[in-house]
Amino acid sequence: MPRIIELSTPGRGFTNITREVDRELSGSGLCHLFLQHTSASLILCENASPDVRIDLETLIQRIAPDGDPAYRHDDEGPDDMAAHFRTLVAGHELTIPVQNGRLLLGTWQGIFLWEHRAQPHRRRVVITQVPESA
Amino acid sequence: MPRIIELSTPGRGFTNITREVDRELSGSGLCHLFLQHTSASLILCENASPDVRIDLETLIQRIAPDGDPAYRHDDEGPDDMAAHFRTLVAGHELTIPVQNGRLLLGTWQGIFLWEHRAQPHRRRVVITQVPESA
Amino acid sequence: MPRIIELSTPGRGFTNITREVDRELSGSGLCHLFLQHTSASLILCENASPDVRIDLETLIQRIAPDGDPAYRHDDEGPDDMAAHFRTLVAGHELTIPVQNGRLLLGTWQGIFLWEHRAQPHRRRVVITQVPESA
Repeated sequence: MPRIIELSTPGRGFTNITREVDRELSGSGLCHLFLQHTSASLILCENASPDVRIDLETLIQRIAPDGDPAYRHDDEGPDDMAAHFRTLVAGHELTIPVQNGRLLLGTWQGIFLWEHRAQPHRRRVVITQVPESA
Repeated sequence: MPRIIELSTPGRGFTNITREVDRELSGSGLCHLFLQHTSASLILCENASPDVRIDLETLIQRIAPDGDPAYRHDDEGPDDMAAHFRTLVAGHELTIPVQNGRLLLGTWQGIFLWEHRAQPHRRRVVITQVPESA
Repeated sequence: MPRIIELSTPGRGFTNITREVDRELSGSGLCHLFLQHTSASLILCENASPDVRIDLETLIQRIAPDGDPAYRHDDEGPDDMAAHFRTLVAGHELTIPVQNGRLLLGTWQGIFLWEHRAQPHRRRVVITQVPESA
């Protein structure tokens, strides 16, 4: 069965979830991570310098500004529509190769949950493992 | 064998294909949807408010404008190169967990085919299911 | 076991790797390509006109400019942070259906490694095949 992990976010920002994912794994094949939301992202990011994440935030705000006057959809505030477009651009799922129960990540790759909404949220990630071809 | 569904689009805009996909499924694991084109997208989108899709269209036009004077590639009109960049940004494939023949989507997630070209097109989606690890 | 292919890039630009991938495959199911880096991309692109790739480069530079004064992260030069955001937007993994050992690509789709850094690099792509459901 696919497993679901629930995570709390502190509002807009990044949470490194590499360890939470890694300990769910066994065998070899692919690990698929699926966020059941359209206003937060799952991304791989350089895990060394926090400045990279600050700059990602700066750049994405330019193309998905909060409270843009053109928005029709603002039911939940100025960050509502921005969050949907940020999710489209940054993605909401990852597939990562697994070998002997370990993620085959590059040295500098970490898995981050990127909360796009201003307020804290509970987020659900579905983890599915599939075996490699014989 | 992978199955292929062919869909007609009415030109630029969104078509909800969640039901067409859901009825192709059985068992548990992952469902992969692959669009065999570089000028249309498969996305997950908030399925409640149509305004979200209107705003996605507004935002993507800012970063992939039709008929930009810088384009070299305009063989098929002002929307040709814009469609390729829109596809790069919004994606052309989705992988979604499946449990007992049902997509494990979040409450507000729907699957949409997003036609980026101005004219109607026929689009081919390859659906592949893979089983979860034992 | 997942296989790893190592590729040399000539600095910023595109390398068509469709043939390198195709010859690694057998059977039917899905082929997953995973780049173990956060400053280069794997994309599907129109394979006929080189102008499309020139225009992709033009458009992505607008949203991920080199040497932007707002960047905090510039340890490795003006293209360092730009490369991370380009990777976020354009992606670093692909999943493609396979039938009888051949990629089920559309007529105009080719697989390209897109180097985002200015200097030549060695890049590692992890190839994993998974079987389709019975």
